Amino acid sequence: MRKGVRSPDKDHQIVEHELQETGFSPEPEKATNKHVEEEEEEEEEEDESVEKIFESREVPSWKKQLTLRAFVVSFMLSILFSFIVMKLNLTTGIIPSLNVSAGLLGFFFVKTWTKVLYKSGYLKQPFTRQENTVIQTCVVASSGIAFSGGFGTYLFGMSERIAKQSGDASRGFKDPSLGWIIGFLFVVSFLGLFSVVPLRKIMVIDFKLTYPSGTATAHLINSFHTPQGAKLAKKQVRMLGKFFSLSFLWSFFQWFFTGGDNCGFSNFPTFGLKAYQYKFYFDFSATYVGVGMICPYIINISVLLGGILSWGIMWPLIETKKGDWFPADVESSSMHGLQAYKVFIAVAIILGDGLYNFCKVLSRTLSGLFVQLRGTSSRASFTVEEDPTASPYSPKQSYDDQRRTRFFLKDQIPTWFAMGGYIIIAATSTAILPHMFHQLRWYYILVIYICAPVLAFCNAYGAGLTDWSLASTYGKLAIFTIGAWAGSEHGGMLAGLAACGVMMNIVSTASDLTQDFKTGYLTLSSPRSMFISQVIGTAMGCVVSPCVFWLFYNAFDDLGLPNSEYPAPFATVYRSMAKLGVEGVASLPRECLVLCYAFFGVAILVNIVKDSLPSRWGRFVPLPMAMAIPFFLGPYFAIDMCVGSLVLFVWERVDAAKAGAFGTAVASGLICGDGIWSLPSSVLAIAGVSPPVCMKFLDAATNSKVDKFLHRS
Amino acid sequence: MRKGVRSPDKDHQIVEHELQETGFSPEPEKATNKHVEEEEEEEEEEDESVEKIFESREVPSWKKQLTLRAFVVSFMLSILFSFIVMKLNLTTGIIPSLNVSAGLLGFFFVKTWTKVLYKSGYLKQPFTRQENTVIQTCVVASSGIAFSGGFGTYLFGMSERIAKQSGDASRGFKDPSLGWIIGFLFVVSFLGLFSVVPLRKIMVIDFKLTYPSGTATAHLINSFHTPQGAKLAKKQVRMLGKFFSLSFLWSFFQWFFTGGDNCGFSNFPTFGLKAYQYKFYFDFSATYVGVGMICPYIINISVLLGGILSWGIMWPLIETKKGDWFPADVESSSMHGLQAYKVFIAVAIILGDGLYNFCKVLSRTLSGLFVQLRGTSSRASFTVEEDPTASPYSPKQSYDDQRRTRFFLKDQIPTWFAMGGYIIIAATSTAILPHMFHQLRWYYILVIYICAPVLAFCNAYGAGLTDWSLASTYGKLAIFTIGAWAGSEHGGMLAGLAACGVMMNIVSTASDLTQDFKTGYLTLSSPRSMFISQVIGTAMGCVVSPCVFWLFYNAFDDLGLPNSEYPAPFATVYRSMAKLGVEGVASLPRECLVLCYAFFGVAILVNIVKDSLPSRWGRFVPLPMAMAIPFFLGPYFAIDMCVGSLVLFVWERVDAAKAGAFGTAVASGLICGDGIWSLPSSVLAIAGVSPPVCMKFLDAATNSKVDKFLHRS
Repeated sequence: MRKGVRSPDKDHQIVEHELQETGFSPEPEKATNKHVEEEEEEEEEEDESVEKIFESREVPSWKKQLTLRAFVVSFMLSILFSFIVMKLNLTTGIIPSLNVSAGLLGFFFVKTWTKVLYKSGYLKQPFTRQENTVIQTCVVASSGIAFSGGFGTYLFGMSERIAKQSGDASRGFKDPSLGWIIGFLFVVSFLGLFSVVPLRKIMVIDFKLTYPSGTATAHLINSFHTPQGAKLAKKQVRMLGKFFSLSFLWSFFQWFFTGGDNCGFSNFPTFGLKAYQYKFYFDFSATYVGVGMICPYIINISVLLGGILSWGIMWPLIETKKGDWFPADVESSSMHGLQAYKVFIAVAIILGDGLYNFCKVLSRTLSGLFVQLRGTSSRASFTVEEDPTASPYSPKQSYDDQRRTRFFLKDQIPTWFAMGGYIIIAATSTAILPHMFHQLRWYYILVIYICAPVLAFCNAYGAGLTDWSLASTYGKLAIFTIGAWAGSEHGGMLAGLAACGVMMNIVSTASDLTQDFKTGYLTLSSPRSMFISQVIGTAMGCVVSPCVFWLFYNAFDDLGLPNSEYPAPFATVYRSMAKLGVEGVASLPRECLVLCYAFFGVAILVNIVKDSLPSRWGRFVPLPMAMAIPFFLGPYFAIDMCVGSLVLFVWERVDAAKAGAFGTAVASGLICGDGIWSLPSSVLAIAGVSPPVCMKFLDAATNSKVDKFLHRS
Repeated sequence: MRKGVRSPDKDHQIVEHELQETGFSPEPEKATNKHVEEEEEEEEEEDESVEKIFESREVPSWKKQLTLRAFVVSFMLSILFSFIVMKLNLTTGIIPSLNVSAGLLGFFFVKTWTKVLYKSGYLKQPFTRQENTVIQTCVVASSGIAFSGGFGTYLFGMSERIAKQSGDASRGFKDPSLGWIIGFLFVVSFLGLFSVVPLRKIMVIDFKLTYPSGTATAHLINSFHTPQGAKLAKKQVRMLGKFFSLSFLWSFFQWFFTGGDNCGFSNFPTFGLKAYQYKFYFDFSATYVGVGMICPYIINISVLLGGILSWGIMWPLIETKKGDWFPADVESSSMHGLQAYKVFIAVAIILGDGLYNFCKVLSRTLSGLFVQLRGTSSRASFTVEEDPTASPYSPKQSYDDQRRTRFFLKDQIPTWFAMGGYIIIAATSTAILPHMFHQLRWYYILVIYICAPVLAFCNAYGAGLTDWSLASTYGKLAIFTIGAWAGSEHGGMLAGLAACGVMMNIVSTASDLTQDFKTGYLTLSSPRSMFISQVIGTAMGCVVSPCVFWLFYNAFDDLGLPNSEYPAPFATVYRSMAKLGVEGVASLPRECLVLCYAFFGVAILVNIVKDSLPSRWGRFVPLPMAMAIPFFLGPYFAIDMCVGSLVLFVWERVDAAKAGAFGTAVASGLICGDGIWSLPSSVLAIAGVSPPVCMKFLDAATNSKVDKFLHRS
């Protein structure tokens, strides 16, 4: 699940503007807190004024935008973000947009770097916003692989561990190993890039798609490189750094008390032991508090509601049917017991929500396309936006638009290059993949590659309109179609999961790249440098992400088991979907299917209600997709996220300006600090260093038994 | 150990002053944070300007200063503060000055009260600073009894529990019981008041003694009742309230996890289990973080140094002599083992420091008196202060001084009344006490009562000069002299401890009252209302304090045992001193006496060094008295206090103005919230409600054993 950050409010109009040109020099540091508000406003400035400020600054050629330092910084950041995304993958699967953090940290590192060089007199090239965009693009591409690589979903779903847990190891499994994962990613991850390159002009200039995350990042980068923005950025970076350190130290401190199962702060029964049994507790995770601060309120509320509905009401009720609906003697983690209800009801909701959104985005895409195509013949451009009144049809281009269009069209990427690249990679991939997964026949792959460009376009277009990437929905489509085609006897499950990987990588990188084209457009970065940066980032991701996963996989023996630190919930979900695809619904316990149908319907219904209500009311309707996640995992992380929401909410009430300026920085700091602690913690685990203390929680009766036992021994 | 708050910096001069007269009306609430600094300066305004501001406000007659509402509020606050002081008594014995909190909270309650009445139209009498002073006096008098009543020292030292622990139950004990404690306090607590009443003019007007705590409180109360001050006070109260709630909720939350021995946050091995064994850990006590914020840095550093010296170095070293210096088979809490070193070395330091300070204050008192008495014959007044250059001799009285002197001398308390009162109470007391403690002969008491007025005067004078009340030192004097006089055979220990109580109550209330006279002088409160308020407060204290103690005593079965939540360290120390007094040093384990002599000497030496160095360097020399406390208790509370210091230090660096204005309020909030939680927690304990969860800390090896045990059972 990937959802962008909220795009900055564009209703603001800045009347006067300081036209300050400092060139490259260290900014004065006198800005005090009182000025945050003004800077904030400047950050939100209208497009009209932006390029005028930058007018006198030379835009470097596309080759000069691709500097060595940018890629060194990108590489470092891509390791950081891979850790973060991997951790999120393997804990809950909720991954907030990290574009802003990437932009911010990229700015910070290169700025520091250039400042040092400037002082020592070695600086040859000043740090430009184009270079900043290159870094951001590269990092997002790289860490995107950590998501689309499926380490928490399809790829890990193939493993023996998940297979055994789902009780269908006989239907084939393929354990992860560094070699084939890197190979697999390399042959599937570049296709998406080539598929959308020819369409960039249509998407960005002709259709003027919004791409909220990409636009927000571009605004951020533009604002950083104005003198006012640099001051704010410095303060944001300081805030991020502060919370990064705090979060890192907090994780480090927590580690000491986790010397055993169910020990430590992450098992703190904050609301009592009974609530803890049903996974209602605050687990002191800085990551999810940060995620809660970034995600919109409605997502956090949805997750909490889902948690209350499932673990607060439904599971306790279903538990009372033990021995009736399902056998009483199965283990709690068995797929023949309560676990099946948890997984399949979540799957039903995810599929219902996915289907609805697929239809919605597809119909929007088609109707949008229809209007566009009819319009392009008579007019140069037409704006399709969610709310047409907000940015009315304007045949006359603004100064910014003119300048941006000129730069965007200056450096062309030949269509033959894109087509040729796609065909060559598709051919190679079709030849290689069946050797990796013998269940995946070459003709399945060929069919995927023929359909893929259309789906990639759809996804890129949909993301441009709504900011939702439906990559995982297309992946699920592949699971069901290819799985059913291959059939249960011919290893359909593995074929489906592998096909899911192929499909997801294409559509996901396609929407990422188009998003980056939009960012590049708004920052005058060349499409060529965007493309090359994305290629390099993807290549980095294909190496870094598997290595990071490998580290986690080897460090934590209980990776993927429910109730462990890294339950990787979606691995089970994906495998269960594949099973459903090849086998049908016969194996489900009693009443489970009925409940699944019901929740599938409810998910669609809730979406319809949400969209048919006016947005004033519709925004209070929870999101079924978000509600499904705690069905499987329990509501503990929902509580973290709501704490994050609460912190932000209170902060916004107390000091809205500061909350707006620093909220994301604080959240990013919390996420990054906790995320990067995963690195030393997994190294420690591999080195066999176990934490010295166990912080245990016992009820008073058990405690007195234990005390007696300890006195005796 | 009672040490006043730092008196406000008086070097500031306010040149211009807003002469605003609002009379009694709700103040405008627009003051923003930016104005804190200015208000701060106004709070520190010089004496010259104060009475001019208040000139137009009528000073109520002494009878009108004593309102019913003042005593109702005082009673509520005296319960609050009795809980706090009792908790401090029974945990570490470090009690910061609570005058400022009493003034602040008194202001808050009556202000709210009068505001409500004002709005409903029933207000007959506006709230004056005199009334505020009456409340403060009454509350301090009442909570003073919680200290001088000896619930953590001599009185509890008589109990069987402490006697058994010290291994000398055979030498007599007297268990606490509500009846005799209240009686005892009533017959001994009022003498001190009568003994200094005739001397008030000499102390306050002729000698112009400083009384830093009393002066600080008067400044605070004066500033509250100016329009600017009321705004600041409101903000301070809000801050206090916020931290009060936080601290209370935090204690409440902690409680749930203490369902067993060594459970919960107060046993959190923050620095690892090895460090925890030697009591190096942060115990998450809001009280001691607050105490650390109020106490001067040097006290906190001293306590930490003492902790490192004793538990970090000496005890581990002495432990290696087990079987050589002391028998290897005694229990850890036995007075024949390591415990003896801990207690007696602490006693030696306390006695050394006490002796030095006694000599110092006495010599100052005598030389000061000598100068005064020689001077008074020729001049009206003479100023004795620690630094004579700061406030030079000035024969001409300022406006403030004139006005204050006039009001101070207006309401007289006849000397015959004071003398008569003293004689009557002394006679009653001499008659009654031997019936309570048959070891305490009537002639011992008579001797004490003959010497007492002189000692009371000395203590009041010394406190006026240095802000140190030496009440406990005079108490120790009584332990040794009366104990030795009675002798070991005739229950000298109990006689000594009881005599200590008699002595401490006299000298302690004497210095408190004189302090209050000074506060009254600076706020134009009548000495009569001060005296009556103190009498009423003392009477309240004589009832409230024993009741609070009784609650603790019944609620916590392990009260007074080392390693318990309430170890009451000074109870053991006082009993050990009494033992030393009647028995000599024969019973100590090997080398203990040598160490005691050494530390006794070192304590005196360190004091000499501290006083002989210029104060620029001398202020970095630690205080032996403060160092001695963790010798017995362990350094955990020192770590809390240093955390408080650190918080304040960082706050002062970040925003000195705010830290200055709100530091004490935050600290008071932390102390009060945690302190008042003692009430519900002891009620819960009495009701037999035990906390549901035990948060346990086990090393990894023990944990896996426990896990196996739990799986088996």
